[in-house]
Amino acid sequence: MSRIKLSTEKVVLIADLVGMSVFAAEGALSAISAHFNLMGVMAIAFITALGGGIIRDLLLGVAPPAALTDRRYASLTFVIGLLTFIFFTLLQKIPTDLILLIDAAGLSFFVVAGVEKAILFRVWPFVAVLLGTVTGVGGGVIRDLLLGRAPLALQTDNYASSVFFAAAVVLIGRRLGLSDGAAGLIGGLTCFTLRLVAILFGWHSLKI
Amino acid sequence: MSRIKLSTEKVVLIADLVGMSVFAAEGALSAISAHFNLMGVMAIAFITALGGGIIRDLLLGVAPPAALTDRRYASLTFVIGLLTFIFFTLLQKIPTDLILLIDAAGLSFFVVAGVEKAILFRVWPFVAVLLGTVTGVGGGVIRDLLLGRAPLALQTDNYASSVFFAAAVVLIGRRLGLSDGAAGLIGGLTCFTLRLVAILFGWHSLKI
Amino acid sequence: MSRIKLSTEKVVLIADLVGMSVFAAEGALSAISAHFNLMGVMAIAFITALGGGIIRDLLLGVAPPAALTDRRYASLTFVIGLLTFIFFTLLQKIPTDLILLIDAAGLSFFVVAGVEKAILFRVWPFVAVLLGTVTGVGGGVIRDLLLGRAPLALQTDNYASSVFFAAAVVLIGRRLGLSDGAAGLIGGLTCFTLRLVAILFGWHSLKI
Repeated sequence: MSRIKLSTEKVVLIADLVGMSVFAAEGALSAISAHFNLMGVMAIAFITALGGGIIRDLLLGVAPPAALTDRRYASLTFVIGLLTFIFFTLLQKIPTDLILLIDAAGLSFFVVAGVEKAILFRVWPFVAVLLGTVTGVGGGVIRDLLLGRAPLALQTDNYASSVFFAAAVVLIGRRLGLSDGAAGLIGGLTCFTLRLVAILFGWHSLKI
Repeated sequence: MSRIKLSTEKVVLIADLVGMSVFAAEGALSAISAHFNLMGVMAIAFITALGGGIIRDLLLGVAPPAALTDRRYASLTFVIGLLTFIFFTLLQKIPTDLILLIDAAGLSFFVVAGVEKAILFRVWPFVAVLLGTVTGVGGGVIRDLLLGRAPLALQTDNYASSVFFAAAVVLIGRRLGLSDGAAGLIGGLTCFTLRLVAILFGWHSLKI
Repeated sequence: MSRIKLSTEKVVLIADLVGMSVFAAEGALSAISAHFNLMGVMAIAFITALGGGIIRDLLLGVAPPAALTDRRYASLTFVIGLLTFIFFTLLQKIPTDLILLIDAAGLSFFVVAGVEKAILFRVWPFVAVLLGTVTGVGGGVIRDLLLGRAPLALQTDNYASSVFFAAAVVLIGRRLGLSDGAAGLIGGLTCFTLRLVAILFGWHSLKI
């Protein structure tokens, strides 16, 4: 039992780190495009990846937030910011749709982790869904503010609503008696599928 | 006595919910005008109505903030965001001056509630006034940031100063021995009157 | 011994208040240029000077933050905001390079104070450096957001990196066995020198 539990935790951790890395690289790319300096690029990488989780933690009363107490998080995002800065011309060639796809995967991991953490604090389910959404979307929104552009997640296609629905699915799955892992898996797949459909069919006019 | 106290609390609660609803609808209207998606509109409704209170609570060390622990608050703002989204064409026809008037009323309730809460935490009076101002103005400022425009409350006419003076009036009233209710009422009326004068006389050049 | 310790504390306090005053005046000047009203100008003065410290305190779990519990801080920034508003035409004549120089001095004090506070909370050294950087740069970034412009500290020349390196120097100095005062002094001088070089040689293209 204990060995299986450890494995689940490891899966969640790896998922979390993968999602984080994707978001950090995306943030760094957009900061370089906006002519930020190296420190600015690393700061945006950090904020894009960890901003949502930091807001969630502060709202839950967790201070210092996990983003600052877990040594892997901050250092990982700074290293990714640096690597993106160095290999910018290379990374720039990645097609937009592939980036959107990787982003969808990262997002799916993030929303599940966000809801799970909110549930641990026994907040009202609707608030848990909100905090899960904030975890997934918050970092990108702060990045957009710092880059001086409207927050894409709140403006275009189904980005925020995919996160919201996925968070709700995790909650409902648990209520229906699913295991934590199963509920998380279905929630993550919901998020990924909704984003995938929007990317494939170019649902930019579907503003929900 | 107890019955009267309950009534006062009910009045404050109703006032708070009315102010919140007004701010949520205003936020939703501006988010729709800025082409936000449905989730974005609901998020802006939530933030406009509750952002100021959330900042105040976090600064006072209250986490999770009341906006997340009281079930009425978050759900009310999301429902109002949804309704505003549905009835947008209808609501759009409301004349600007009427919106400003309703906003002034909402603002007056908010600043009083903000000061009262700060006083409960026994902070320095000047800081209580500041936190009252933040409660009234903060949500609108975050909304303006997310919509990519300069914060109106800090830029035009007497918006922020009306809130500041009203908050000061509440504090001074209590110092002079007025009851909580009377001090709150006079403070609220001060805010409403200052805003009313600015709206009626078009004091947009009076930058205080 | 106790007398010397007191003196050190007084030096830190004076340094802190000087840095704060410089930042508050700078913030007020840019808010007036952006046509903010008087309350907006005072708010921007407050946020520019104390925003970085407030973020650091909230991230460390210190609420209410020092900016609100120490009566000198909030009142000083508001008075400076008011004075800047009154003497704007006079202050506008100060040459840009002198402002940059005074800013460099203020920044140097701020970053040292920020790191020292983070160290007190026994966070991981890298996080202490990050929090020191946030203390120095955070207020200016929020000001830039509220004024609707890209955050200069993250975009141009060596602003953020000067702060980051200086914060690292303080940490490394202490590890090497230097006294708190000596490590702080060397760190502050590092920040000031790096900024001075950038200002004198116009290193605006050196984006690190």
